[in-house]
Formats: sequence, structure tokens, C-alpha cells
Amino acid sequence: MIIALKNQVRKEEQEHLIHWLESYGVRTHISEGEFQTIIGLIGDTTRIDTDLISGLDIVESVTRISEPFKKANRKFHPDDTVVRVTDQVAFGGGNFQLIAGPCSVESEEQVSVIARAVQQSGAGVLRGGAFKPRTSPYDFQGLHEEGIRILLEAKQRTGMPIITEIMDIGHLPLFEEVDIIQVGARNMQNFELLKELGRLHKPVLLKRGLANTIKELLMSAEYIMAGGNEQVILCERGIRTYETYTRNTLDLSAVAVLHELSHLPVVVDPSHATGAARYVRPMSLAAAACGADGIMIEVHNDPQHALCDGPQSLTPEQFAEVAAAVRRVREVIQ
Amino acid sequence: MIIALKNQVRKEEQEHLIHWLESYGVRTHISEGEFQTIIGLIGDTTRIDTDLISGLDIVESVTRISEPFKKANRKFHPDDTVVRVTDQVAFGGGNFQLIAGPCSVESEEQVSVIARAVQQSGAGVLRGGAFKPRTSPYDFQGLHEEGIRILLEAKQRTGMPIITEIMDIGHLPLFEEVDIIQVGARNMQNFELLKELGRLHKPVLLKRGLANTIKELLMSAEYIMAGGNEQVILCERGIRTYETYTRNTLDLSAVAVLHELSHLPVVVDPSHATGAARYVRPMSLAAAACGADGIMIEVHNDPQHALCDGPQSLTPEQFAEVAAAVRRVREVIQ
Amino acid sequence: MIIALKNQVRKEEQEHLIHWLESYGVRTHISEGEFQTIIGLIGDTTRIDTDLISGLDIVESVTRISEPFKKANRKFHPDDTVVRVTDQVAFGGGNFQLIAGPCSVESEEQVSVIARAVQQSGAGVLRGGAFKPRTSPYDFQGLHEEGIRILLEAKQRTGMPIITEIMDIGHLPLFEEVDIIQVGARNMQNFELLKELGRLHKPVLLKRGLANTIKELLMSAEYIMAGGNEQVILCERGIRTYETYTRNTLDLSAVAVLHELSHLPVVVDPSHATGAARYVRPMSLAAAACGADGIMIEVHNDPQHALCDGPQSLTPEQFAEVAAAVRRVREVIQ
Amino acid sequence: MIIALKNQVRKEEQEHLIHWLESYGVRTHISEGEFQTIIGLIGDTTRIDTDLISGLDIVESVTRISEPFKKANRKFHPDDTVVRVTDQVAFGGGNFQLIAGPCSVESEEQVSVIARAVQQSGAGVLRGGAFKPRTSPYDFQGLHEEGIRILLEAKQRTGMPIITEIMDIGHLPLFEEVDIIQVGARNMQNFELLKELGRLHKPVLLKRGLANTIKELLMSAEYIMAGGNEQVILCERGIRTYETYTRNTLDLSAVAVLHELSHLPVVVDPSHATGAARYVRPMSLAAAACGADGIMIEVHNDPQHALCDGPQSLTPEQFAEVAAAVRRVREVIQ
Repeated sequence: MIIALKNQVRKEEQEHLIHWLESYGVRTHISEGEFQTIIGLIGDTTRIDTDLISGLDIVESVTRISEPFKKANRKFHPDDTVVRVTDQVAFGGGNFQLIAGPCSVESEEQVSVIARAVQQSGAGVLRGGAFKPRTSPYDFQGLHEEGIRILLEAKQRTGMPIITEIMDIGHLPLFEEVDIIQVGARNMQNFELLKELGRLHKPVLLKRGLANTIKELLMSAEYIMAGGNEQVILCERGIRTYETYTRNTLDLSAVAVLHELSHLPVVVDPSHATGAARYVRPMSLAAAACGADGIMIEVHNDPQHALCDGPQSLTPEQFAEVAAAVRRVREVIQ
Repeated sequence: MIIALKNQVRKEEQEHLIHWLESYGVRTHISEGEFQTIIGLIGDTTRIDTDLISGLDIVESVTRISEPFKKANRKFHPDDTVVRVTDQVAFGGGNFQLIAGPCSVESEEQVSVIARAVQQSGAGVLRGGAFKPRTSPYDFQGLHEEGIRILLEAKQRTGMPIITEIMDIGHLPLFEEVDIIQVGARNMQNFELLKELGRLHKPVLLKRGLANTIKELLMSAEYIMAGGNEQVILCERGIRTYETYTRNTLDLSAVAVLHELSHLPVVVDPSHATGAARYVRPMSLAAAACGADGIMIEVHNDPQHALCDGPQSLTPEQFAEVAAAVRRVREVIQ
Repeated sequence: MIIALKNQVRKEEQEHLIHWLESYGVRTHISEGEFQTIIGLIGDTTRIDTDLISGLDIVESVTRISEPFKKANRKFHPDDTVVRVTDQVAFGGGNFQLIAGPCSVESEEQVSVIARAVQQSGAGVLRGGAFKPRTSPYDFQGLHEEGIRILLEAKQRTGMPIITEIMDIGHLPLFEEVDIIQVGARNMQNFELLKELGRLHKPVLLKRGLANTIKELLMSAEYIMAGGNEQVILCERGIRTYETYTRNTLDLSAVAVLHELSHLPVVVDPSHATGAARYVRPMSLAAAACGADGIMIEVHNDPQHALCDGPQSLTPEQFAEVAAAVRRVREVIQ
Repeated sequence: MIIALKNQVRKEEQEHLIHWLESYGVRTHISEGEFQTIIGLIGDTTRIDTDLISGLDIVESVTRISEPFKKANRKFHPDDTVVRVTDQVAFGGGNFQLIAGPCSVESEEQVSVIARAVQQSGAGVLRGGAFKPRTSPYDFQGLHEEGIRILLEAKQRTGMPIITEIMDIGHLPLFEEVDIIQVGARNMQNFELLKELGRLHKPVLLKRGLANTIKELLMSAEYIMAGGNEQVILCERGIRTYETYTRNTLDLSAVAVLHELSHLPVVVDPSHATGAARYVRPMSLAAAACGADGIMIEVHNDPQHALCDGPQSLTPEQFAEVAAAVRRVREVIQ
């Protein structure tokens, strides 16, 4: 971290700041220029609040050289993390998975038909929403407990691990047999929830928030990891912009940036990002081409009648075709 | 709601859609053009999911004429809502309040000094953070229970009602004597929390999310109101853009838009919006000038040493000057 | 176009509006509901200004069903447009091109070395900036006339067609032998320039503006096409968001959307979009995977010393590897 | 400027970089830390391209301490610039002006009626569009030469100075008697146009671009000023976000930031920013309250029939009321 002081700062003020900084266990290095004094901090600056320092009267600017995340940082953990879900299913370090299933769990029949179909096409994980975050209180909110029960039944029948979204700490007991807990975009900075998930020994798929930066996504991963749970899968699902033809703007460069900054696996969700089934194929191939460790795709046996987000679901047949094309792309990108 | 069908839709498909729509209790009106059939829906369309319909194969486009919020909607409730906190303190319907206090509660001494000062300058409500949402798990997270205790003590001494932020449903018991519960930007779409607050009989100040639209803010208010708690105060606190000189971009036109669309009072938080004490005065005056029902300002007796967000705090002396100027502006805008 | 009137509009006002609308040559269809009257417009509504109508006192809302672009619209021109640059080089309709070269033209030596290298690796078009739009008036602005001369010399030696950016109508005479004229992001809505280019018989590569929507990009293409020049190549080069790890956010879903809405070829520029050489490979592969008709890549024989935008340039060796990988991806995506 | 080098940079590379930097006339100051070497640059770094340096292999990060604008910078010119248009009309340094008039010039009759009305209500400058930048080539593009003639006639009759927008260098001869030349949002980075305006001796009102930062606005002002024309008026007119209730998001904090960073006067355009007449009053009062040096308001004697942008125009009566309220606010904000 580098702190540039304003002109004509009094000696005592400068000393006072330096003492305070050193109380955090960092060493300081001062270069006095003609017009400007610069303080360099050496050591672990993670705990130093740049907002606080940049607000001081005597400070002109503060620059972080090193990122404020540590456990999620590739610098301190150069090898890819492999998040192992079952013996057969893992993400990262060369392991790639298709996650597929309906947006919302509607019935045993529905989940069972879809689960078998996507398993046959090569999906490794079954997804399905039991708790649904909806903008309107009048929209369908999911089957809750019953939804999780239906997913667990499909898991038992097919052997596929399941992923489903959590919306509140209070629901955690229902997730005991869920294989991967999903944190949705709207909860990416629900810090109390993240802390709680940090105490579990279970993979967490953390979606990037609606308008959050890559750095904030990694800081939220850090919340979970700081608690002891290092099995975090990051997920790019589109960010909010002024473009309206797609629901969100899928930021595929985030895949490359996340792989550079962090050792955690990165999954892409083209269904929610674009909000339209017809864009899922091209965006899935693009995600595979730029190195994603997994793709999460909504599949519905009857997309026209899905209770929510139907428009963005593929049919099982379409999914099978996309899955095959994704595999072909993955084979040629090395 | 208006649904435009694609060309050459089969009669049965069209009928099927109309039956389904009418099952929601709305009436339909069909205009058959040469190239296009248009279905108009008459009645309460709040419960109809436009995303779902726009995804149907036979549908070209869907347009909502009426807003999907009802209880927060000025159309159904033309008079301003007055949120009454105490006998002396109310928001809306001509009632204006300054909310002031430190970003974080640090000590009894600090809160007590600031509370007395801002009360003397005309603040009606005392603010202070006990639970602090911080991007980094390594930053100061607030005094929690102890912080609320300190606020309640200041309330007892000064008679000022207090507002403080909640971050999780589980903490609700600690908020029993808190006068206004604040929902922060990051929790604006924490729907489970909103539902829970809808069951209380206590004013809730709901901050606009980091990158949420005005409509989404009103839908979140609707979550609280749908549960029975209609004492909601809306708060504009800046939204995320590509501009970096200010922490967020304060959207003051939201005050005018919210007053048009809704009957709920609207408060502005220039401290968090700009992130810099030197912009708080001009933005407070602007907020007053465009009709805000309250302004929430961070005040710290020693801004340089605040544990968090110090840079954006005013001193008690600066606050007194701003409060007086705000009053002068309010007097001349009618 | 569908116009919903407000409640209780007087008969004369409604008639007045309808006459005015019909003066544009469209037919109207009125549906009178209990609470609302809806006017449907049938025919060519391209010339009707929705902003104007939505401002009328008697109008509640206006919705365009059909897009306001016509010549660029796939509905009226279902087959892909093939923009033919030379006998060997074309974009669209299955024709794919790599465009490569330095950000800025610096010297004959430089351009000649790079041109030969990228040609050998399969690039079809040589790029190079002679006029450089720079945010600061103190930054290098390009070699201007001399830059174009150098490019034309390289064209003569290698036979490669060249593309270079125009910044002002007044410079047009210098572009006579340039094969493709590039309109940069900052000039996407320089309408006078677009009109002028509409009078030429020469391919134009039109870059999406810094923060422009897909619809606005197509409207700008329409400006060129309305003048008679239908040889327009669209280019996605990243849009401005709050993300700061990449210079812009590359919106690859725009490729799929543009292919759906328009028949024009779509090229992707990962170099400017990301601003970093290390992200060019993954984003190039992703662009190829989602169906781009071309990729424009900055290549510099000495990226460390490029006069501008060096950080985002590949070496000729890196380009050769990326070009080969792009070809492999293109082979497997059908 | 501060350059942090990567670990383990070779001595020769470091020396090479330092020599290159010093060739720009700056002095360097090196601090060697245990893990990192930091180079501080002292002197005028305006001409040094940070993008270029940050791309070098040996560089970890580059931070500008001082802003890259110089002539527009308050640091080097602490007193407010007063842009004097006529003997009576000036902007900045305590001088405040209302600019009013129709969006588009339609007829002599129209301009003459409006000019007289707004003059009586206290407007100091008459606005009116002769060249109109429109997203669609099929929308009304302005009366061009005839429009300017009409404005000049109104100027002669009323004595009001006039402002109108330029869209291309080639039209400059038509602007000889125009008092203030407006550069619209879409041309804020039309650098060739800016350079040309820098050669004039005439006030230029420079609008902030659709999605441009405050720093970019100042860099564009710098383009004009670097050419010798220092009579630049900055204009905030809303920026593009995801909010859709207003046409753009008016960034009033930009007024405070611009006044801090620059000595140039700042005008606000609430009509274009919000796109709706009903928001013009609250946003005008807010602009006055936060210290704007002028407000530009669209006024039309028949807003329902304006050829463009009618919805956002006030009637002359509404304007008179707003003008009076603005004056009252300005009196109480000191």
C-alpha cells in the first residue's frame, strides 16, 4: 500500500499516522520528495482500511498494490483448487461439469424426467430451485421444504449430486443432504449468511451479484473461506448494464480474470445471464472456449409452462446438443 | 398489460393463452390486426408474471401498463403516507427530519457527545451502526449487541428516537426497542428479511440497493407492506455507475420519481452516496430543494478517527451549519 | 406500435391524435376497454417519434412492437449480408476473417514486419491506426497522412486489404484507397460522419459506442445504409461498466443478439475490450465459439514499446497460436 | 505519478525505464523496499501515458497522483473563471444564468414568442436547436442554416445572446454570430471538433457525454483550452445507467466535484437529463441549491406539438415559476 501525503504536512501529524499504521504490524518506508512525501507499507495490509486513510486530512491518495483478499488469492495458492463434490464429480484443476435442471422444482414427475435426461446427456450435477428469490412478493416463491425433498429423491434415484439455493440462515437445517449450496446474486453480500456457510464442510457455489465487481466477488468468497470452508465455486451470471436485449450482460472476461487472480473454479450461468433460451447455446460454447470449469444450464421438459424463468430454459433435446458441442469445444482449446 | 402475439398464431394456441390469463381473474380484450393480434388485459394483473408470458413461443412482446406494485402505489393511495415515529417525529406529508449520528457506534462517550450536539442543531432521529456490512471480512464489523445498548442509552438520555441497521433475521430480538429498523443497500432484495419485517409494527427505512432500479425499490417496499407493515420510509443513497470521483452516483431525480409513483416518504443519504464530507453540504441542500422528506447525515466528533467511513462524516459544527441551510432552503421551495 | 391512452380522454383529443398518426401513412386500430383505450398502429411506423407521443398529455404509454431500424433488420432481409472486401476477403454468410496489426502505425519497418507475420498466420485484413482518438490532448495522436501512406505501402507489398479509423469528414480524401473505413466507438453517434459514409461505396466497420445499446448500434448502421451504402460490418468492442479489472466489459451476447436482429456481419475486438494482452486469447476463442464473423486483434512486434495501447497487443508469435486455436474452435461449433 | 515495480526486476531494466521517464523532463525518486521498488515521478507528468507504462512487463502498477488536466485544473488556477458572453451576461465567479428556449427551432413565430417570454422571466441566454443529433436517421434533424437564421433574428430583436449546438466542423462558418457554441453529449469526445473550437475566441458549452466520467469531461475541456480558447462552460446533463424511469440519471454531485477540481463554470440541463417536464422543477431547484452557475431549460409555447423532445419542455408560465423559485433558492444557500 502506498500513501501519498499532501504538501506541507506537519512533522507530528506524519509521525502520528506512521505510528498508527505500524500498530497494524506493517513496516513503513518513507520517501520525501520536494513536493510530496510518500509512505510505502510493507507486510500484510489486508486489515488496513483504505477508505479510512484516504479520508484523513493529510492524505492525498492511497493505493493498494496487493489485493485485499488472501485465501482466495492465487499469489498465495498458485495451484488450482479442486472442489470435489463426489468421487466422480469435481470442479477445477481440469475438472469440468455441466450443471443442469429446472429453474424451479415443480413436481416429482418433472424433476425425475429432467434429471434422467440431463444425466444421459452428460450433466454431472442436478440443479433446481426450492427457494426462489423473486422481485415481486406476488410471484411464485418456490416449493421450499417440499422442493428440497423432491431434489433429494431425484438424487437417490440417479446418483447425481444436487445444488440448490439458500436464501436465509434459518433454512440451513433443510440443506443437510444438499451437495452444493448456492448463494444467489442478491445474497452475494449477505455477509451474515456467508459467515455461516464458512462454518460448514460443504461446497458453496457463490454467484456474482447483480452489479458487483470481480474484486467484491472475491471478497465475498474470502468471507466464506476465512471461516474455514475453502470449497468455494465462483459463478459468473451476468451483470446489470443499460443494455436491454439481454436480461443481464454476461461478462465472460471475468472467467479469465478470476482464473488469473484466484485458484478457485469458475462456473458460468448463461441461462440467467441472457434470460433467453436462444442465446444459451452460443454463450455456453463461448464459456467453454474461454476456460470455464463448468456451465450451469436451465433445462425444462416443458419450457412454455415453467412456473418461473421458462423463457430461458432449454428442452432436454436442446441440452443434449449443446452438451455435445461444449465437449467438442473443450477438446480443441488447449 | 398488453400482449402482442406473433404472426400466424394458431387459433387453439391463442385460446389456450387467453384461458390461462383469465384464470388469474382478469378480463381480456382482443384486437385482431392484419398482421398482428393484440390482447389487452383488464383488471388486477399484479400476479401475472410478464417474464413467463414473454417467453412463450407465440408471444412477440408484453407490456405492463400498470405498475406491479400496489400497496406502495400512489394510484391506489393518493395521499402522502405519514410515518410517525414518536409524537414529535414523523416523516412525509410535509413532515421533514434530519437523521444524524456516527457511522459506527464506538463508545458511550462518543454517541452521547454526538447525540447531544445533533439534537441541539435540530436532528430528529439519532443514527448509529451496530452491525456493519463490510466488503472485507477483515474490516471492523461493528459492536453488535453492545452497540445497540449504547444507542438505547443515548435514546433514554436525549429522548431522541434511534435508527440502526439490521443484517439478519436472527438478530431481530435485539431490535425490540429500536425505533426505526434500517435495511441496508446490500439487503434490499433479502426477501426473507423483508417478509419478516412485514410482520412487525415498526417503521422500516429501506435503502435502495447498490444497482437497483426505482421499481425494484418499490417492489421491495411492497414485500414489507404486503405482510401488513405499511410504515416504510424509502431512502436514496446513490447507485453504482462508472464514475469514480464519488463513491456512488446520488440519483436525486429518484426523489421526484418516487414521490410521483408512491405515497411513501423519501429520505436521502448524501454521506454514503458521495463518500466524502466535503460533498455532503451541497448534496443535502439539493436533496432539500427537490423535496426530500428527510436527510440522513453522518456526524462524528472526531471524523479523522472514526472506525469506519470517517471520510464522509461531518463534525457537529459543520452539521449545525448544514442543518440551518437546509431549513432555509425548505422555506423557499414551495 | 401500441399507444395506451389515459383514462377519460375526450373524444376530440383522441380523434385529433388518430388523424395526426394516420398522416404518417399508418392505419390505426382502436380497442376501447372499460378503463383504457388502446390504439394499435399498423404499417411502417419507422418515422413516428415515440418520444414525442409519449409526452402527450393524453397518452399513458407507447410501445414499439417492431424495431425502428429497417435496412439493417433481418426481418426484411433474412439472408446474411456478405461484405466483400476483395475477391479473397469477405465477412458474413460463413466468411470469417482475422484482422490484425498494430494499434498505431509507427514506421514503415514496423508495419511491414507485422503485416508479413500476421499474413502468414492467416490474417485476412491489416489494421493500423493513423488517426488516434486519445482522451488527453497531450497523448500521441497518430502519424495522420504519413500513417495512411505507410499502410498503403504495406498493402501493396502484401496484397492485404487495410482498415484504418476515420475521425473527421474533412479527412475523407485521404481514405480513398483504404479498403475498410473504421468508425471508432467515440464516433458511433457522429451522425454527420455516418451520413457522409453512407454516400460511399466502400465497406465501413462500425464500432459499438462506449455505452451504447445494441439498438443504437443498429440505428447508427441504419444511418449509413439509409444513404445507400449497405456494406456495414458491426463491431463489439466492450462497453463501459463499473468493473475495473478489464478496460471495458466485452459483451459477447451482443454477437448472438446482433445475428438475430440483423443480417450484417459481426466482428469482435478483444484487444480494446479487455485492454490486456493476456485476456486476448480466451476472449478470441469465446468470440469464435459464439459465432463472430471476424476478430480484430492488436499485434505488435515489440509490445513493450508501442506508442499507444501496447499492453493489449500480442506478439506475432502469440497471434499465430491464437489464430490456429480460433480455427480449431470454428471447425467444431456447427 | 508512482510506479511500483514487480519483484526481482533486473537492474538494467530498471535503469532503462528511469532514463526513458526522465526524457520527459521529470525527476525520479526511487525507494527500494524489501519486496518492491517504487519510483516516484516529480514534475509535470501530464505527457506521460500511464497505459503505456502499466503495460510494461516489469511494472506492477501505476498511480497518478496529480490529474492529467492542467489548464482546466483549479490547482493551477485557483480563482473561478468568469466566462463573459456579453456585458450583461456571464457565467461563473458568482454569475448565474438561466438558459431557455425550445429544443428545436421550428419557426420565427415560435422562437420569437418563446424568446420574449423567457427573457421577461429572467433568462439570460436563448437556446434553440438548429442541428439535431437524433438516434434515428428517420427522425427530424433540425432546420439547419434556416434555424440559425431564425435564432439570430430573435437575438437581434431581444438582445439576448444565443446558444446552439454544432455537429460538424464543416458547419462552423454558420456559427460566426452565435454567442455560445454548444458541443452535445455525443460529440464530447469528437476530438477533431474540440481542437477546432480551441482555435476560436468564443465561449463553448461542453456537455458531458452519455457515459463519460468527470475526468473525461475535463480532459475534453482541456482539448479546447490547449488550443488557446479558455472560455469553456461545463454542462452536466445526466449519464446513462440502468434506471429507466428517467431518460438519464442526473449526476448533481458532479457539480460539486467539478467546482472542486476545476475553475470553469458548471451548468445543469435538467430537461435532457430527466426527459420529463414534471421533473424539471425539482431538479432545477436542486441544481441551484448545490451551486450550479447556470441552468438550461427547454421551454416551448406548445409542448404537446414540439417536433422533438416535447415531453421535456416547460410552458413559458411554468418556466416563469421555476425561474422565480430558483432565484429564491440561490438567495439562501450561502
